Amino acid sequence: MAKRKLETCFSPALFEAEGHTGSIVVIIDVLRASSAICTAFANGAESIIPVAEIAEAREYKSKGFLVAAERDGYILDFADFGNSPFNFTREKVKGKTIVYSTTNGTAIINLTRGSYKTVIGSFLNIKALTGWLIEQDRDVMLICAGWKNRFNIEDTVCAGAIAEILMQSDCYTTNCDSTLAAMDLWSLANPDLSGYIEKAAQRTRLRDKNLDDCIDFCLMRGYTDKIPVMKNGVLIVTDY
Amino acid sequence: MAKRKLETCFSPALFEAEGHTGSIVVIIDVLRASSAICTAFANGAESIIPVAEIAEAREYKSKGFLVAAERDGYILDFADFGNSPFNFTREKVKGKTIVYSTTNGTAIINLTRGSYKTVIGSFLNIKALTGWLIEQDRDVMLICAGWKNRFNIEDTVCAGAIAEILMQSDCYTTNCDSTLAAMDLWSLANPDLSGYIEKAAQRTRLRDKNLDDCIDFCLMRGYTDKIPVMKNGVLIVTDY
Repeated sequence: MAKRKLETCFSPALFEAEGHTGSIVVIIDVLRASSAICTAFANGAESIIPVAEIAEAREYKSKGFLVAAERDGYILDFADFGNSPFNFTREKVKGKTIVYSTTNGTAIINLTRGSYKTVIGSFLNIKALTGWLIEQDRDVMLICAGWKNRFNIEDTVCAGAIAEILMQSDCYTTNCDSTLAAMDLWSLANPDLSGYIEKAAQRTRLRDKNLDDCIDFCLMRGYTDKIPVMKNGVLIVTDY
Repeated sequence: MAKRKLETCFSPALFEAEGHTGSIVVIIDVLRASSAICTAFANGAESIIPVAEIAEAREYKSKGFLVAAERDGYILDFADFGNSPFNFTREKVKGKTIVYSTTNGTAIINLTRGSYKTVIGSFLNIKALTGWLIEQDRDVMLICAGWKNRFNIEDTVCAGAIAEILMQSDCYTTNCDSTLAAMDLWSLANPDLSGYIEKAAQRTRLRDKNLDDCIDFCLMRGYTDKIPVMKNGVLIVTDY
C-alpha cells in the first residue's frame, strides 16, 4: 500500500483548504478547547454544535440548549459554562447536546469543512486517535489552533506526539518541515511535558487568570477512547 | 534600561505589521535569498533594489541594470543571474546596483515597509547582525521567509541562533512561543547544522534541481560583517 502523506500546520492562517479535500484533518487546541471537547464526550455528551459567533451561541441558549462559550478564557455571562474540561462533568453533559463557542476552536472547525473528515485531537485521546487514524487509508493534516493565529508550543508538541506515533506505524511519509520540527520539539518535551509547557505563553496567560488548574489534566495521555468527529456541522463521537 | 521585546514569525503570512512600527524587522531566507544578498554586499555591491514582480525586474534589465531574478530556484531567462550566493562574485557586483527579484524574499521586504527598520539576516552575517541589534534600543521581530508562506526548518533554526545570542545579551525579553521553539530547534541543530538541515524540504528541493552546491556556504557563521538595511525601498549596507 502506498504511504499516506502526513502534514502539519502551525496556525489556521497557514491552512490551505484546496489541497486537502481527501485528507483527515485533526484539530489540536490543547489549552483548552480540544481537551474540553474530548472530556465532554468521555463524560457521555451526545453531540457538540460548534458555533463561531457569540450571537449564535446566545440564540441557542434562548432556545434551551446547554451552552459553553468563552472569549480569551473567560466564560460569557449567558453561558452555562466556559472552556475548562473540568466544567464538562458527567452530571452536566451526559446524553446532552452542547453548543460550544471558543476564541479559537470553532472558527477553525468551520475552516476545514471541505476536508474528507475533521476530528478533534488532544493528549487526552491521543492513543485512540492515532490507532483510528492508522486504520484509515487517508492523508492526515494536523492543524494547531495556536492562539489568535499565532504559533503555540502546546499544540505543536501535541502534533509532534501524534506525528511520532503515526510515523512509527510506517504507514505515513512526510516531507513537511512543520511535522519534522513538531516531532523534534516533542522529543524535547516528552521527558517532562508539564515542565516543558511551563514556558508556553498560553500557560502564563491561564495562570494570570487563575485558569490553569486544568493544565496537568490536559496533558494526560490516553484518558479517553472517544474521537470527536464532525458530521454535518455537528461533532459526534467515534469510539475506537 | 527596560528590556526590549523579541518576537519571531514562522511565515510572512503570520506577520501583523501594525504592532511593529517601532521594531527592527530581520528577514531570514537562508536558502537562498538572505545569504545571496549578504554575499553581494560582502563582495562590494553598492545597493540592491528588491522588486516583487517579474515584469518590473525585466523593465530594469531593459534600462541596463544588473538583474538577479529567479522563480522556484531557477534563473529567469532575461536575468544576469539567479539566487545562488556563488553568482554574486566580486567581479560581477563590486560597486554595482543590483535589481533582485526572488520567489519569496522581495515580497516580504515590501510587507515590512511600515517597521522602524528592515534588515537582512542569515548565518553569514549573524555575528555582525546580533552585535548591531544589541546596540540598538529597539524591539526585534525575526521573520522567517519560509517557502510559499509555509514554515521551514532552515530559516527557523537561523532565527533560533539569532534569538539565542540576543537573549544571552540580557537586553531582550520574550513571551513569544515561536522564539522559544526556534531556540529549542537551534539547540538540536547546532551540534551538526549541515546534518540537521538534511531533512529540510528546501534542502531536498535544491538537491533535486542540482542547486544545492551552495548550502554549506549558506550555513557558515560570520562570513561577513555587512548588514543589509532597507532605506527608501533600497537595500544598502551597514558595517558593524
